[in-house]
Amino acid sequence: MSTSKKSLQIQKTYEALFALEDLREIFRQSLPAGFDEEEQEKFSGTVARIKSILADLENGSGKPACTRVGKLDARTREEEFINIHPIQAAGRLTPEARKAIISYGDGYSTCDYCRKPFRLDKITRPPIEEFHQDLAKFLNMDQARVVPGARRGFQAVTQSLLEKGDCVIVSSLAHYTEFLAVEVAGGIVKEVPLDDNNLITAEAVALKVEAVRKETEKLPKLIMIDHFDYQFANEHDVYGIAKVAREYDIPFLYNGAYTVGIKPVDGKKIGADFIVGSGHKSMAAAAPSGVLATTNEWAPRIFRTTEMIGDLTKRKFGVKEVENMGCTLMGATLLSMIASFPRVQERTKHWDEEVQKSNYFLEQFQRVLGSGILSETPRKHTLTKVDTTGSFDTVAKTHKRRGFFFSDELKERGIVGEFAGATRTWKLNTYGLTWAQVKHTADSILEIAGKYKLNIN
Amino acid sequence: MSTSKKSLQIQKTYEALFALEDLREIFRQSLPAGFDEEEQEKFSGTVARIKSILADLENGSGKPACTRVGKLDARTREEEFINIHPIQAAGRLTPEARKAIISYGDGYSTCDYCRKPFRLDKITRPPIEEFHQDLAKFLNMDQARVVPGARRGFQAVTQSLLEKGDCVIVSSLAHYTEFLAVEVAGGIVKEVPLDDNNLITAEAVALKVEAVRKETEKLPKLIMIDHFDYQFANEHDVYGIAKVAREYDIPFLYNGAYTVGIKPVDGKKIGADFIVGSGHKSMAAAAPSGVLATTNEWAPRIFRTTEMIGDLTKRKFGVKEVENMGCTLMGATLLSMIASFPRVQERTKHWDEEVQKSNYFLEQFQRVLGSGILSETPRKHTLTKVDTTGSFDTVAKTHKRRGFFFSDELKERGIVGEFAGATRTWKLNTYGLTWAQVKHTADSILEIAGKYKLNIN
Repeated sequence: MSTSKKSLQIQKTYEALFALEDLREIFRQSLPAGFDEEEQEKFSGTVARIKSILADLENGSGKPACTRVGKLDARTREEEFINIHPIQAAGRLTPEARKAIISYGDGYSTCDYCRKPFRLDKITRPPIEEFHQDLAKFLNMDQARVVPGARRGFQAVTQSLLEKGDCVIVSSLAHYTEFLAVEVAGGIVKEVPLDDNNLITAEAVALKVEAVRKETEKLPKLIMIDHFDYQFANEHDVYGIAKVAREYDIPFLYNGAYTVGIKPVDGKKIGADFIVGSGHKSMAAAAPSGVLATTNEWAPRIFRTTEMIGDLTKRKFGVKEVENMGCTLMGATLLSMIASFPRVQERTKHWDEEVQKSNYFLEQFQRVLGSGILSETPRKHTLTKVDTTGSFDTVAKTHKRRGFFFSDELKERGIVGEFAGATRTWKLNTYGLTWAQVKHTADSILEIAGKYKLNIN
Repeated sequence: MSTSKKSLQIQKTYEALFALEDLREIFRQSLPAGFDEEEQEKFSGTVARIKSILADLENGSGKPACTRVGKLDARTREEEFINIHPIQAAGRLTPEARKAIISYGDGYSTCDYCRKPFRLDKITRPPIEEFHQDLAKFLNMDQARVVPGARRGFQAVTQSLLEKGDCVIVSSLAHYTEFLAVEVAGGIVKEVPLDDNNLITAEAVALKVEAVRKETEKLPKLIMIDHFDYQFANEHDVYGIAKVAREYDIPFLYNGAYTVGIKPVDGKKIGADFIVGSGHKSMAAAAPSGVLATTNEWAPRIFRTTEMIGDLTKRKFGVKEVENMGCTLMGATLLSMIASFPRVQERTKHWDEEVQKSNYFLEQFQRVLGSGILSETPRKHTLTKVDTTGSFDTVAKTHKRRGFFFSDELKERGIVGEFAGATRTWKLNTYGLTWAQVKHTADSILEIAGKYKLNIN
């Protein structure tokens, strides 16, 4: 089977999926009793078209038809290539999630059976209430809510806790959304320095708390630290940091954007007051989605319900949570998260093997002399920052395609997701690849190095 | 063709879609070069399965296979029934949107070609930047951003404009998310009374502004009014209200949750400072999604970029917008909105006919003596609050299924979406139904009335 045959078959898979959506639309436009003549004709024509697509799909034959949707190209990256994109890896949908969004794509699709008290997390059909309970249990926290992205989880916490001018302890590797969450709440970020290994230690956090206390004569209102940061995906001592937070009686927000959904996270064991995770980054869910979990102690504050009363009508929407703006994910996003959840629970148990694959890949990767790893080693994560200044960048210097030669070579071998054109420092993620895909990626790197006469160990 | 044949064919359509997703997963797990023996076998088996499903689909034969996804039932309401749900009608996906989410469901699917300055609305491939420009033009405003639901648009505005204790003028029919948006920003709602026709007039707004000025010795900071409210979908005088707002130099937020995407909205003509629309309610997009548009005058404030600087690292993420928390809709939600957009633009031109269908339906509906309309008449919208206390509720009083008898009867005729069990006041929406579907729905109402010996005009 040639690559182009596979490529054609993928194209035909999309054609078939799209044609089935055309078919589905005929049902939607028809009367309950069934088709009229014109609809029946359209139906038969579409079925015939699907049959013919299917024959081509089976044989890898035929000509590609147009699969553009308006101005959008069909996105076939995940089918055609091995994708090592740093932030896309664990947000790829499971087949279950893809089926769920086919089924629940329509706007307010979660709301068919919304009954009193009219709040998303109380809906029992589909079992959204149950999912919320499972989610809290999964993180070993008391309560959980879904939110439109981890950032909206940070925001709910900062806006609940901060007064104007209050300080929040963050990492020197904090994600920009943590900065924004503090800023939107009127707070000020105070960064904890990294140690020589680019790690945030509990001691450094304690020192920063003291420094803030000295400077402002107040304790910081919140400590918000990433378990694994977005730059190096180094593991920071969240257990020790939570202990420091407890000693100072400052609430601790555990940023699990790079852990929740891929490795086990035990909120009680960590000692977290808040856990935030990302659906589209690490829980195989459509964007924007995420989770905010907390303890029974903090829930009344973070998930406080509205107190606003209409001055004239005296209306009050008592059950709606202020920081969540009422309901949050009313459709495909939530349902994709729910559909992926059983597999997500399962996959966190196999995190060790994912890390193993990551380390195997990087071992091979470093056989090219001049290629290095900027993240901590051995890796404890599948996301890694690498440095190829001493290897592939030396080729880029004289190649007419500059750094893009590297992207070209990778793509030719069926690999995408590196930052196109970058041959100095860049990031990659092996999460979710099969061993065969990991080996192929490693082999490809060595092959490219060989082609350009780089030294290989 | 019997209903059960159609029902089976819909089932088979889902089976085929789901089986194609299984097929797609084989590609995702394979190597770029192609399948190994085991994968090839799986591929052939799945293709064979699809062929057999397709034969059943064509003939309406065979047995239904399981299409549950974990704990989720496949949602076939839109295919099997005419759906008159009050808030779902205009959020149903177009076929284009369904194709887009099939293609772009994966978490960060919009981010393949994210380049400097690294912000969602600047991405050119897919053409997200262009879409943002088109969206602003569509609303005749200067700038637009997508947001995770209309509520997050309100919030961006209130949090940008309000200080603690500031007042905001809202309608006595304001949606709860408007209350929350004011509350989360520390403000206070001040409701404008309705006139005898359940309408908000410009004069009433002016009087309320004066009352607030008298009470607080300050002008309100914002006037936020729904063009069509969620209760009656009555049309409120947004043109006159915008004029009042201008006279007082108070910014005006036009809530277009029930207009943007279904009827023409011209921000400049209205005189709006902010326009908020809902993707999943009225723009045929997946949830949560929405739009916030504004003028060049207000954009620097509402879309202000971060000023926060890391005290230690001096990091600054200058291009990221504070109230949007950086990027907003990074995947399927946005792409569904983009894919639906050409059809959404087109359909707003046919709003008059939608209103015509609504009025035709209600004319028939009122032929049942004792059935009335609580919304203004003739209708200017497709969402309507009706009152059947004097008709169907009289049946419910003695029926063993109580109000559910009405739902049963509707469902038997292929109609869903009314509030199950409600036979007094309830809401319905005819948006997007074909004339044939509207007529069938009207006929069904009359048929049910006849069956229970209600008087018909």
